[in-house]
Amino acid sequence: MKITCSKTELCNALRIVSKAIASKPQSPILSGIFMKTTENQLELQATNYELSFISRLPATIEEPGQMTLAGHYILEVISKMPGEQVSLSLPVGEKMVTIQSDKATFKLLSMEAAEFPQIQPISGNIHFQLKDALLRKLIQKTVFACSNEDSRPVFTGCSLSIKEHQVMMVATNTHRLSVMQTQIDESQGNINIIIPAKILSELAHTLNSDVPQPITVTCSPNQISFQTPDTYMSSRLIEGQFPSFDNIIPASFATHVKVKRELLAQSLERVSLISRVSNYNVVKLYFTDGNIHLSAHDPEVGNADDDIPAELNGPDLHIAFNVDYLKDVLRSMDSEVIRIGFNREISPAVLQEEDTDEFLYIVTPVRTTF
Amino acid sequence: MKITCSKTELCNALRIVSKAIASKPQSPILSGIFMKTTENQLELQATNYELSFISRLPATIEEPGQMTLAGHYILEVISKMPGEQVSLSLPVGEKMVTIQSDKATFKLLSMEAAEFPQIQPISGNIHFQLKDALLRKLIQKTVFACSNEDSRPVFTGCSLSIKEHQVMMVATNTHRLSVMQTQIDESQGNINIIIPAKILSELAHTLNSDVPQPITVTCSPNQISFQTPDTYMSSRLIEGQFPSFDNIIPASFATHVKVKRELLAQSLERVSLISRVSNYNVVKLYFTDGNIHLSAHDPEVGNADDDIPAELNGPDLHIAFNVDYLKDVLRSMDSEVIRIGFNREISPAVLQEEDTDEFLYIVTPVRTTF
Repeated sequence: MKITCSKTELCNALRIVSKAIASKPQSPILSGIFMKTTENQLELQATNYELSFISRLPATIEEPGQMTLAGHYILEVISKMPGEQVSLSLPVGEKMVTIQSDKATFKLLSMEAAEFPQIQPISGNIHFQLKDALLRKLIQKTVFACSNEDSRPVFTGCSLSIKEHQVMMVATNTHRLSVMQTQIDESQGNINIIIPAKILSELAHTLNSDVPQPITVTCSPNQISFQTPDTYMSSRLIEGQFPSFDNIIPASFATHVKVKRELLAQSLERVSLISRVSNYNVVKLYFTDGNIHLSAHDPEVGNADDDIPAELNGPDLHIAFNVDYLKDVLRSMDSEVIRIGFNREISPAVLQEEDTDEFLYIVTPVRTTF
Repeated sequence: MKITCSKTELCNALRIVSKAIASKPQSPILSGIFMKTTENQLELQATNYELSFISRLPATIEEPGQMTLAGHYILEVISKMPGEQVSLSLPVGEKMVTIQSDKATFKLLSMEAAEFPQIQPISGNIHFQLKDALLRKLIQKTVFACSNEDSRPVFTGCSLSIKEHQVMMVATNTHRLSVMQTQIDESQGNINIIIPAKILSELAHTLNSDVPQPITVTCSPNQISFQTPDTYMSSRLIEGQFPSFDNIIPASFATHVKVKRELLAQSLERVSLISRVSNYNVVKLYFTDGNIHLSAHDPEVGNADDDIPAELNGPDLHIAFNVDYLKDVLRSMDSEVIRIGFNREISPAVLQEEDTDEFLYIVTPVRTTF
């Protein structure tokens, strides 16, 4: 095998696939990145059996072939190469791969390419397309709300449902719920799946192309893949039933608040210096017209109190939350001003962006004394 | 006690003194930052008995007094305050310190101020002054060459010697030696001391004032202090005799090399991806006229080979080094082109900046086969 390609493009492709290498691979070959030539491309693969990533880049193929290189080395070596182009070669029957760029030459011991479990694209019977910007938005507004605890698998993923022109992604850890729904131009049939948070996070990182492009999604009963012209990512799906949440979305609110997102975020950041000390990470809020009073208390450290301006409609309200559940959602919102709806101090609150109902976040208060 | 001061100035002062707090303080009070008012200043102190730092800043004193606050909290709290000004107050007989800025108020449990071992400025009989830029240069060109091993204390510090108009700082770990010497305008008498690397590193970080200022140095038989109008830093001195090194500086060189510093640094960075795997971290260099060939080898990983242009006078030479000993010194040098002098492959090499002899670095080669 002998190829030449752009150093920058090879680094990008290596960065994408290397995210599928487990920190403790099940077998030595899974610590490697498999490379093979196609007609005028170099294809890179890595897998930990749960996630499987493929990335392709243009390459001049002088001799077709394949090789597997240790994943943690190859990205560092390529990124430190002096030239703009880099060439990789492995003569038939040899073990040392030669990597050359400008006047620098590395010879690295390769792994046995034939041992690498090549990724088989999943052959599902469900196919649909989503625009990359839309998919990124669906992920970024929901994936942070997933649970990290494996004990209840359905909460470690995001529920994706498509019904004709309506697409919705939902995530929850049972204490907070994040819902993003929007319209799509082309009807894509009916879909209901739960996708692991892990692949969605990695996917969101790669969806940063300047040129808008459609993502082709394929599902089999227990797997999903996301495909662009350059990359392919597949994962198992999470089995189970995502809970119905329609009945927990309050139909109306007694108190409506409008507040500048950045002001609230900074104030929460401040008072959380005290609340993070305790186990429950509690911030207390007191909403009145014109003002939100935020406070946190820890008997061994002290108190924090802060006030920020806000607009209020309805009765005043004392309420307390896990401060992280508020900080997380404010980071994922985009509008300058956000809306918050409340009923009672023990009822869930709802956060939304100022001018759209597409995104909705429900958070359960913490019971405390005021 | 009640004072008001600039948030930014207080953060800067806290950042400086907090470096004297040990990661595992000997007693709880040493995890605190002591504060006291002077006529129109706030003075901050922290110590781990080995290092003692004081920093002062302008403040409006409404009620004089003193307090001690937990070091790891107070910097975070102050830096997250919303306003430009911050006020601190501790009513007599109370335990909660109130920190206020704009609409934010923190009340933090204070420590017992009287328990803090207030820093006594050392009363030495040796005093001299050095310009801050000169002192920073002396430190930055030498301190990296110190040893980290406590088994031979004199090598964990830098030797500072002043003889009339000549000032010299030297550091070594016995495998490499860094010497910076220069002339000063005013004679400062004769001084020979060994200063711990720790305080020199911290001192170099604080010597970044835009306005040139003199540093007053005071020595007692076993302590040293560095003083500017705003800060005071003291440390024990290292006892012992710094070894004489005049006889290891080669009087002449068989081979002279000139090479671009940045090119050599990048190439070493590259080949060190291989050399760092082995225990000895070895890079081999082959100097010929017009070219330096760099290589590294590890039987379990592979080889790296690289070439960079260089000017050579004298016989060609194969020589090998611990790659870190070269990378370190290149970072501390300033000139675009550097000079290297060699004699034989088992003799120390000398690195210098292009146009000055003030700085000199001697590095012992590694014995290897070529």
